[in-house]
Amino acid sequence: MIALPQPKADVLDRRDAVHEGLRALLPARAVITDPSRLKPYETDGLSAYRQMPLAVVLPESTEQVATVLRFCHQNGVRVVPRGAGTSLAGGALPLADAVVIGMMRMNRILDVNYADRYAVVQAGVTNLGITKAVEADGFFYAPDPSSQLACMIGGNIGMNSGGAHCLKYGVTANNVLGIKLVTIEGEILELGGAHLDTAGYDWMGIVIGSEGQLGIATEITVRLLRAPEGTRAMLAAFKSNEIAGRCVDAIIGSGIIPVALEFMDRPAIHACEAFAKAGYPLDAEAMLIIEVEGSVEEQDALLGRIREICGRFDPISLKVSQSAEESAAIWKGRKGAFGAIGRISPDYLCMDGTIPTSTLPEVLRRIGEMSEQYGLGVANIFHAGDGNLHPLIMFDANNPESMHKAEAFGADILKLCVEVGGCLTGEHGVGVEKRDLMSVQFTETELDQQRRVKTAFDAGWLLNTAKVFPLKPGTDTAPAPMPHAA
Amino acid sequence: MIALPQPKADVLDRRDAVHEGLRALLPARAVITDPSRLKPYETDGLSAYRQMPLAVVLPESTEQVATVLRFCHQNGVRVVPRGAGTSLAGGALPLADAVVIGMMRMNRILDVNYADRYAVVQAGVTNLGITKAVEADGFFYAPDPSSQLACMIGGNIGMNSGGAHCLKYGVTANNVLGIKLVTIEGEILELGGAHLDTAGYDWMGIVIGSEGQLGIATEITVRLLRAPEGTRAMLAAFKSNEIAGRCVDAIIGSGIIPVALEFMDRPAIHACEAFAKAGYPLDAEAMLIIEVEGSVEEQDALLGRIREICGRFDPISLKVSQSAEESAAIWKGRKGAFGAIGRISPDYLCMDGTIPTSTLPEVLRRIGEMSEQYGLGVANIFHAGDGNLHPLIMFDANNPESMHKAEAFGADILKLCVEVGGCLTGEHGVGVEKRDLMSVQFTETELDQQRRVKTAFDAGWLLNTAKVFPLKPGTDTAPAPMPHAA
Repeated sequence: MIALPQPKADVLDRRDAVHEGLRALLPARAVITDPSRLKPYETDGLSAYRQMPLAVVLPESTEQVATVLRFCHQNGVRVVPRGAGTSLAGGALPLADAVVIGMMRMNRILDVNYADRYAVVQAGVTNLGITKAVEADGFFYAPDPSSQLACMIGGNIGMNSGGAHCLKYGVTANNVLGIKLVTIEGEILELGGAHLDTAGYDWMGIVIGSEGQLGIATEITVRLLRAPEGTRAMLAAFKSNEIAGRCVDAIIGSGIIPVALEFMDRPAIHACEAFAKAGYPLDAEAMLIIEVEGSVEEQDALLGRIREICGRFDPISLKVSQSAEESAAIWKGRKGAFGAIGRISPDYLCMDGTIPTSTLPEVLRRIGEMSEQYGLGVANIFHAGDGNLHPLIMFDANNPESMHKAEAFGADILKLCVEVGGCLTGEHGVGVEKRDLMSVQFTETELDQQRRVKTAFDAGWLLNTAKVFPLKPGTDTAPAPMPHAA
Repeated sequence: MIALPQPKADVLDRRDAVHEGLRALLPARAVITDPSRLKPYETDGLSAYRQMPLAVVLPESTEQVATVLRFCHQNGVRVVPRGAGTSLAGGALPLADAVVIGMMRMNRILDVNYADRYAVVQAGVTNLGITKAVEADGFFYAPDPSSQLACMIGGNIGMNSGGAHCLKYGVTANNVLGIKLVTIEGEILELGGAHLDTAGYDWMGIVIGSEGQLGIATEITVRLLRAPEGTRAMLAAFKSNEIAGRCVDAIIGSGIIPVALEFMDRPAIHACEAFAKAGYPLDAEAMLIIEVEGSVEEQDALLGRIREICGRFDPISLKVSQSAEESAAIWKGRKGAFGAIGRISPDYLCMDGTIPTSTLPEVLRRIGEMSEQYGLGVANIFHAGDGNLHPLIMFDANNPESMHKAEAFGADILKLCVEVGGCLTGEHGVGVEKRDLMSVQFTETELDQQRRVKTAFDAGWLLNTAKVFPLKPGTDTAPAPMPHAA
């Protein structure tokens, strides 16, 4: 288990005063202090970790967010920003001495501009909610995390979220044009805008993916894209992970960029097929889901080239979807993968590393060896086109030894990703889950430089404390010293 | 004229000691102190500004860069990083009390990996040099500034450079995977790597476009892309800027992403045609250059759709290139635009603002009004697909009043870009040129937050001092105070 920080005793002692202070600043409906109503906020998608927060506030405007942050800053109270609480890395895990700022009531779409292809939305709008608001007019918002029905754009900013279709369209950072950000001191900053490019530093870039540690995003200007005429998926099944990996390389290497290119190994195929009845090939060792888009002619041309490439790798089967229903069934299995694993294992850990795609066969082989060594099952699902691996480690959370083993297995997988030239996280973020592994990826000098960026926004280290960075001995927040002036 | 900072008298007094110190640390060939040999370094692409530096060093390794930076930091000496010196914003302008670190001798390609599609290159490799090294194997590096024959990848990192073909492939930030960065304290940091995504903050993102103020990039891992089967360009000529602007909107709005979509107004067409003899339509008010790529069939399909869209806007002419030679002639005019303007005006200022594309007709109309008001000619060239405008203001640098007017005209154009919802710079950077205009785009609170990021990397403000940020009264570097700890 990863250590949670010691709460500040003086803040716990001032609990009632903090509650009163928040009530004096916000409407009564926006402040939650009753333990039974705090309970739903005690954890997030990394549900092995739980802690009751000091209070929850649900602001309804940027000004209210600024008011709360100013109050917390003046009173030395930590703050945990929260969207829908779907983080798989514990990014929204509360602290006992922290106020959770939940963004779900800031759920309005403020502006839609088709001429310049952008929308301005509040942080509590769901990811899918953006697309739902514009799809009748032929547009969409591209990043599509599996949790897109629930997860909020504010949380997507925090974690720089991706999704299966980011191969073609990029992740959150590639699809956000502007952010209204409130600092811990209650200042409201405008980063970017409804245009490409930035003047001066790309400070919006450092905020996207900073896990709520630099400020709280309240309004986001997102890029809208014109929806394609249509999409079609195909399945390709192979005799080994290695062969499927080489096929991925050949497709990408040919210059084709499918909208999605997903890889599932044998355990993942079996679990998902049992759940989705999508006609997945149960005799295969590895399967690719490949989706293309465009006019029917463009789809035909692309699928023809992809079939030809797949054909060179001695496939067990190639199956092109013949209808929207067949495509939907193919995706149902993939998008329901987490639920499918949940049916065959009491608990699972979803890892999230990124590797150079050419190392895929080696990485899968070594994960298989680790699985035997730890005695825990693992299913591998992989955004193969961009090298983002999601091993699902199956374990039993009611058995402390099993849980301990699962965490050690997960850490070994992420160390392997770094070893082969990859990184600790593709799209889920560091949170508490991978905090102590950051030292595998970075030197202490590198971490100190990153900590200085945090300090430049939040000198008191109040925002989403004790995440992202490994704790320094004897403290839970220790900012790096600033560099020496000459 | 923009004020250059007062040199630090104590550093000028220590000139000989600084020279000796550098000579003790580096091979003799790497240190330049003789005024006649310093002369080529006194200016960059913004040649109206000149200043002789204290010294120039030409390191040959990352370790030498670290040695020089450590020395400068310990001795309180400012540093100006320099690639090829092609900055149009004065990004590499020396200071009288600064050591210029020229990267041109670090010009080796260290690694090429086609399996994972990346190359590792030193900062002094030219932009085009990367493509030249891999094109025989069917790959290329995508960003293509007009200066790509000369400009270096290290400078591209500093300015987050773009180019005509960035519409499809993105700018430098979208095509760099990793950076080896040396801090002012001489620490060597690894940012990113040969993989997608980053763990923790996107600190590589804040370095790209930071104009050499956060550290010096010495080795860069760039993404290689598979070269398309072929490309073809077409010309479309229209009766007004507004009609051409609406046609751009219709093409992009249809979901087609050409590789390039360039806009030229009447003065630009005439100047470029006189230079390149490319068959540009001299009777048109506005012209688009549209390039597509892919197999011949894909090119035909895309050009067919684009022709159909252009046809709705009552074009004067539509001309699809029938050969590689015709395509080359079309691009010769565009890529030679700066030289072409140089033939009809003794001097020009090249501005670089970004606007929401729907505001193009209004912006061009108002630039035309300003041109009459200032009595200075202007030609407009525009990366129309992504809203990046390049007005070329014609003036006579030997006439102080003309130069003063040109600078005021340029500032008015950039203020207009901000007014319509755009920004001060698309791809050239802020440098000294736009430093004092940053207050048009940002509040003082916003600038202070950005200054704090600078301070987090370089507390003494030694790296590329007096650029990017407006000077504070009474000082030339004033870092913002750090935020108050709670």
